[in-house]
Amino acid sequence: MNITVWNEYRHEKQNPDVKEIYPNGIHHVIAESLRERGLPNVLTATLDEPDHGLSPEVLNQTDVLIWWGHKAHDEVDDDIVERVRERVLAGMGLVALHSAHHAKIFKRLMGTSCSLRWRESNEKERIWVVKPGHPVADGIDMCIELERTEMYGEFFDIPVPDELVFISSFEGGEVFRSGCCFHRGYGKIFYFRPGHETLPIYHNIKVQQVIANAVSWARPTAGGQYPYPAGAAIHAV
Amino acid sequence: MNITVWNEYRHEKQNPDVKEIYPNGIHHVIAESLRERGLPNVLTATLDEPDHGLSPEVLNQTDVLIWWGHKAHDEVDDDIVERVRERVLAGMGLVALHSAHHAKIFKRLMGTSCSLRWRESNEKERIWVVKPGHPVADGIDMCIELERTEMYGEFFDIPVPDELVFISSFEGGEVFRSGCCFHRGYGKIFYFRPGHETLPIYHNIKVQQVIANAVSWARPTAGGQYPYPAGAAIHAV
Amino acid sequence: MNITVWNEYRHEKQNPDVKEIYPNGIHHVIAESLRERGLPNVLTATLDEPDHGLSPEVLNQTDVLIWWGHKAHDEVDDDIVERVRERVLAGMGLVALHSAHHAKIFKRLMGTSCSLRWRESNEKERIWVVKPGHPVADGIDMCIELERTEMYGEFFDIPVPDELVFISSFEGGEVFRSGCCFHRGYGKIFYFRPGHETLPIYHNIKVQQVIANAVSWARPTAGGQYPYPAGAAIHAV
Amino acid sequence: MNITVWNEYRHEKQNPDVKEIYPNGIHHVIAESLRERGLPNVLTATLDEPDHGLSPEVLNQTDVLIWWGHKAHDEVDDDIVERVRERVLAGMGLVALHSAHHAKIFKRLMGTSCSLRWRESNEKERIWVVKPGHPVADGIDMCIELERTEMYGEFFDIPVPDELVFISSFEGGEVFRSGCCFHRGYGKIFYFRPGHETLPIYHNIKVQQVIANAVSWARPTAGGQYPYPAGAAIHAV
Repeated sequence: MNITVWNEYRHEKQNPDVKEIYPNGIHHVIAESLRERGLPNVLTATLDEPDHGLSPEVLNQTDVLIWWGHKAHDEVDDDIVERVRERVLAGMGLVALHSAHHAKIFKRLMGTSCSLRWRESNEKERIWVVKPGHPVADGIDMCIELERTEMYGEFFDIPVPDELVFISSFEGGEVFRSGCCFHRGYGKIFYFRPGHETLPIYHNIKVQQVIANAVSWARPTAGGQYPYPAGAAIHAV
Repeated sequence: MNITVWNEYRHEKQNPDVKEIYPNGIHHVIAESLRERGLPNVLTATLDEPDHGLSPEVLNQTDVLIWWGHKAHDEVDDDIVERVRERVLAGMGLVALHSAHHAKIFKRLMGTSCSLRWRESNEKERIWVVKPGHPVADGIDMCIELERTEMYGEFFDIPVPDELVFISSFEGGEVFRSGCCFHRGYGKIFYFRPGHETLPIYHNIKVQQVIANAVSWARPTAGGQYPYPAGAAIHAV
Repeated sequence: MNITVWNEYRHEKQNPDVKEIYPNGIHHVIAESLRERGLPNVLTATLDEPDHGLSPEVLNQTDVLIWWGHKAHDEVDDDIVERVRERVLAGMGLVALHSAHHAKIFKRLMGTSCSLRWRESNEKERIWVVKPGHPVADGIDMCIELERTEMYGEFFDIPVPDELVFISSFEGGEVFRSGCCFHRGYGKIFYFRPGHETLPIYHNIKVQQVIANAVSWARPTAGGQYPYPAGAAIHAV
Repeated sequence: MNITVWNEYRHEKQNPDVKEIYPNGIHHVIAESLRERGLPNVLTATLDEPDHGLSPEVLNQTDVLIWWGHKAHDEVDDDIVERVRERVLAGMGLVALHSAHHAKIFKRLMGTSCSLRWRESNEKERIWVVKPGHPVADGIDMCIELERTEMYGEFFDIPVPDELVFISSFEGGEVFRSGCCFHRGYGKIFYFRPGHETLPIYHNIKVQQVIANAVSWARPTAGGQYPYPAGAAIHAV
């Protein structure tokens, strides 16, 4: 299985606080955590590379794409968004992290605004397992606690998830559907909330475990070829 | 539409604190709140009546049954549970309130333990709308706040709801799927969490509104007759 | 409740066979069938009117929009598609009929290709109720039979419906998820398969009944105002 | 992973036609097909063994239980049904095949009648993949064709499946939700329709593939221990 970790990679270069937490970028911490969990074939790609690092060759060899973006969603080229979308419909897995709820690719696949209520206040989050037995929650017992996080609250304007695995609470009293599975075309998508850039969330081993689980869950199957690559209907005889 | 409000009606007779809040029983407060909202045909039934007030005649004329029970679940007769279950499968709506998560009828229809984590500590609950536009949330904006409630927390061992309308948070940091829609047979079931007997929850007008909404949502349709009243399969020609 | 029936209205003007079945257009047959079922406030709108008949004023007063299109999906202006989408997210119901599976507005809200397999061969369709008790199936017993229809077959590339009400079979052995409910934002969407323009499908009283049911199901609720009209997240205090 | 294949094992001993197809019983054909697909630890158990072959020791070591039963559902002991149910809620996978829709254990976990319409007429079935990308459909392209099968038709009185993977059509025009995923407690359940005893359905390699896929999908995860083994709620501090 080939994994590509995509990161906007701007905060880390511009903000010393973020750089201290993620000196080589969020993507390298995530990539390394996947390799440590027995997923060796991990590449990275970032916004400022040619083609954002997502050439057709790279995408065609990617089984699961992880996406982190925040301040530069608008700089992602629409043609590349469409290229990624075609790959997801054809079977590539997509794991969208935290502020990627507003990434063009996520919004395009969901069809809704994907907006939410938020507050940056370093309050405590509890991420509760509401679908134990689901492979994305493998190894997670009852809940994950994060002492200091950014708050994301409902109403989260997404389609109803096919499977809801985690629900978060925050000290301020908000709740959030923080682990959501979607099928789109032949592809599987997992949205996972944790991950503000100014906090060491991706160094948390339980967060790392969930991301690795999600990658395994989202891998393509051998169930045949996506029949609508050009978007057209097929005339059946 | 004919509605029957069923109440165990024991706490109110034995506990002066409960009696002060619900002098004539929880069932009468709920029944009156439905009449005030334009649902005139409301009967009540209680555990200590013959047949628990749920004779075949009463059930056959009931379109939606509301159920509140807590300390005497075991005293409900198994044959009457089965009678109610047959009516739900045949199309009667069921609205299960609060501690009715452990009522025999609810557990029998769900197939799981319906257990949960709980704490009686009068902490604040926020009930968030996560499916706006759903008729059960009609008239409810963003969230309902209850200043003092009993806590119910995940993992709530129910089947995945067909539709998840509300999620609660509690001061202690727990979350709970507190408004859940299920279809079983031709019938519709709504579970709604609020309602501890020592607190005036059913006097809250937003809680009343949700219960009235749920009753309207759960009413039977004219979509044909349930084909399996005796539980057998049907030989098709 | 104000209903607007939108029709592409091209086949009826160009093809004598279609004109014979729908002399004034599909939209008028549908509109009349709704009025006969006690929904008096029905307007119509068509592609070749200014703004496709969907000015902001019309849309703002529309509670449920019905959409039929086929050969001219590409001529629908992108800005008007976006205007309709904003209204759906804000709570307006949308009922998409038959070949509207490929309408820009439906594809935009779904995020997938919405493609399918099809065959124009006038074979028999049976539309089975798989969620009896659902209001969209109200009054429909077991199945609807259409003697001669166009075939639509799986894989239908849509997101998993929130509720699956009907499944069709065709003489050729195909199946199709033909009655699908979706929530998007504060709005509700129903896709219903029947309706090829060369066949008198919309004169069928059971098809008319389902469309009227869907309109009632999709009507907006009073649950508060959609919080993300401009698509942005909201900063919570 | 330890798998136990349970079979009623009566038809094979009493009916020569069935014995010719399954000389050692359906359970041995299924067990062998799993071993051939790299799942070596497969035991079998049958109705007429002590404890129906399902002692606490056997069940505690079973990760996934496959169930085939038909004519003797009523002879399955209620205490053993409850023992199996407790294991499913605690995380054991269950794969229910064909006429096991009416097995006590399946009905108990579903809460509904699990009845359906049927016809024994050796007609053609097409099992369509409606959720490509799902691991249970791995390796299955578009549909599985079975030339001669028993017909099962809607309305199939089950709770809405958490995930619907396959839908069947039959020559008589019926449809059936023939591949259904459910989560109950910490356990996962898959119902798969094919398998009448008088036809060599379990010798079909695609049917075998789906059963093997289902076993892998239903295996327990390491997500913590089921908190409600005795059915009681837990007091949280």
